[in-house]
Amino acid sequence: MPENQSFRQDYPQLDPPVRTLMGPGPSDIHPRVLQAMAAPTIGHLDPAFIQMMDQIQGLLQQLFQTKNALTFPVSGTGSAGMECCMVNVIEPGDRVVIAQNGVFGGRMADIADRLGADVVKIQVPFGQKFEPEAIREAVAGKPTKLVGVVHAETSTGVCQSLPEIAEIAHEVDALLLADCVTSLGGTPVKLDEWGVDLAYSGTQKCLSCPPGLAPVSFSERAVQALKNRKSKVVSWYLDVSMLLNYWGGERAYHHTAPINMLYGLREALLIVLEEGLDAVFARHQHHGEMLVAGVEAMGLSMLVPADYRLPQLNTVVIPDGVDDAAVRRALLNDYNIEIGGGLGDLKGKVWRVGLMGHASRRENVVTFLAALESILVQQGAAIQPGAGLAAAAKVGA
Amino acid sequence: MPENQSFRQDYPQLDPPVRTLMGPGPSDIHPRVLQAMAAPTIGHLDPAFIQMMDQIQGLLQQLFQTKNALTFPVSGTGSAGMECCMVNVIEPGDRVVIAQNGVFGGRMADIADRLGADVVKIQVPFGQKFEPEAIREAVAGKPTKLVGVVHAETSTGVCQSLPEIAEIAHEVDALLLADCVTSLGGTPVKLDEWGVDLAYSGTQKCLSCPPGLAPVSFSERAVQALKNRKSKVVSWYLDVSMLLNYWGGERAYHHTAPINMLYGLREALLIVLEEGLDAVFARHQHHGEMLVAGVEAMGLSMLVPADYRLPQLNTVVIPDGVDDAAVRRALLNDYNIEIGGGLGDLKGKVWRVGLMGHASRRENVVTFLAALESILVQQGAAIQPGAGLAAAAKVGA
Repeated sequence: MPENQSFRQDYPQLDPPVRTLMGPGPSDIHPRVLQAMAAPTIGHLDPAFIQMMDQIQGLLQQLFQTKNALTFPVSGTGSAGMECCMVNVIEPGDRVVIAQNGVFGGRMADIADRLGADVVKIQVPFGQKFEPEAIREAVAGKPTKLVGVVHAETSTGVCQSLPEIAEIAHEVDALLLADCVTSLGGTPVKLDEWGVDLAYSGTQKCLSCPPGLAPVSFSERAVQALKNRKSKVVSWYLDVSMLLNYWGGERAYHHTAPINMLYGLREALLIVLEEGLDAVFARHQHHGEMLVAGVEAMGLSMLVPADYRLPQLNTVVIPDGVDDAAVRRALLNDYNIEIGGGLGDLKGKVWRVGLMGHASRRENVVTFLAALESILVQQGAAIQPGAGLAAAAKVGA
Repeated sequence: MPENQSFRQDYPQLDPPVRTLMGPGPSDIHPRVLQAMAAPTIGHLDPAFIQMMDQIQGLLQQLFQTKNALTFPVSGTGSAGMECCMVNVIEPGDRVVIAQNGVFGGRMADIADRLGADVVKIQVPFGQKFEPEAIREAVAGKPTKLVGVVHAETSTGVCQSLPEIAEIAHEVDALLLADCVTSLGGTPVKLDEWGVDLAYSGTQKCLSCPPGLAPVSFSERAVQALKNRKSKVVSWYLDVSMLLNYWGGERAYHHTAPINMLYGLREALLIVLEEGLDAVFARHQHHGEMLVAGVEAMGLSMLVPADYRLPQLNTVVIPDGVDDAAVRRALLNDYNIEIGGGLGDLKGKVWRVGLMGHASRRENVVTFLAALESILVQQGAAIQPGAGLAAAAKVGA
């Protein structure tokens, strides 16, 4: 059949390098997920697929710890989930309070602005968290439609406590939107107990699944806000009232769902729940602690204080005189380890070391510590050779 | 490790049925594409991935037959591609002419309406095509920003000729937008020669790749329209000026690209170009003709006249007295063949039989004809047993 093989000279066989993905995502993919994604494609209205959709929704509810009926994966990456949550409830002129302590809070504010909202952005420096009082002040006085907060800031590694903020938002009849991209499946996310109205996540962080889907969940209050809209949702693709006809009871065609990505997500969710949520969270916590013990013993320091630090996304302060890009390049080229650089205000100031999902493994912690030590020694940095691995080992098996 | 296996009782091992996908998409996936998708995930800023992005853009330009620099896959399904093209050039108040002869033209009009455009919808019945004069009348008199046309109507099987419409649009300084979801890789798409300014497609039709990406292409005129905008693009996720920083020279992070889907798309594009575009189009044409000869000899009729019928999407009129749903159910359950039902105005009136990409194979044509004949005979329909396969065979090998 092939008549035109000659042009293949410029396009070798697909053979991506095998990396250990310890950046801010994508993280290491579980082999079972890749295997699931290669299963035969079926139609998006096939009875066998409809059954799988029910399962995925039920599994996502367990991960989000919610009874929200409107819980499903958006056909796009995490940022499509963010946009989906916002575009469905925000109308032009709505007052929206966004708490920004990193890049992703800034993205929320940008989206709200594009939707014509009256955006009130409150800020603390990258790497800090918000005190509930700051939110209380921001929503005081004027009717506010939505409060947007990042539960797990992928750009800084900060975990923001949500229950107090939910209470404040609800007191003034505002909805609480939370970015759970990096938290879902890594640290507890309890939408119902905490009172989160809109949440979104991504598949490529603690779910150990390739990027391409954005799980979202809408509370009854959020659904009510959607029903009370005066204007049409400006995005057809992300209009939840239409998506609901497909993911809800009717199974009416909206757009063609990304079938094989959904095979992968189903497998990824099963892997998390087989291990059990508590065990998963404990594993992330434990390996995060090992990593921190190691880098601190080496003589480096963490950006975020321990009490609100995410164990799955560790921001390590780059020591003075160390060449950021050279270190990351050496990790990638000599050890096949990907970590992330700093984003926004933290560009050039921190490394972002992810221990998410399947990447949160003991072997990854020690390999990273060993590789980083070697590279820093080569760069002539003032570190304590051997101290990192010894300290990590003491955190226990 | 697994502590919680018991819950797996409700979730059996993923084992989707092996279907022959002869509906309106997803179509049969080429095995090499599924294999590529299971390759190890790498980061979206990994040098090895950046190199692959260049390749994918070059391959897409070959398929779209364009030199447009802004040619890349949107991280969403075909409808996200439609929305991406429209949201980037349409501003509130812009006059937009949409030619609707099926469901997807209707979707274009819906999106334009949500964007605040002054939408002029011209219509012909489902299954018919537009004469250029109808477009000329619609754009006459008032300044028009964009003309939207469906090149290959997935809901009807109509192929709309574009060069004359492009000329008319350009005479009045309007952009031409074309839906190429079902045409790309199945019938010729010549953006530059025809003068199409904005085009979008999907991976799950003639590219033999699972759904999840939407190739798009913007001409220089379209890019100019983008640059001349007075307002921000209302969608952050689909804002091409930002996506361009990632897919263009800078490779600046925008959102996390769906890595493994892009592995699949790369492989899918290589498969098409290995065969060669002319050979691919001839194969689609040939198998479409076989199918039509078969169904017509059986005593059934086609909705769309031969001169503007798509060979990859065949709308067969359901004979009086035949139970639409029962026939499709029997094809699926007894033969593992998926075809599509009618959409919109054609609901219950036609079957949509796809012969797209890897599904456009001789064995699929004869299996479908044989299965359909058996089912119709069982239903007591007045058809000519044996005539279908005989007529198809005469179309030649």
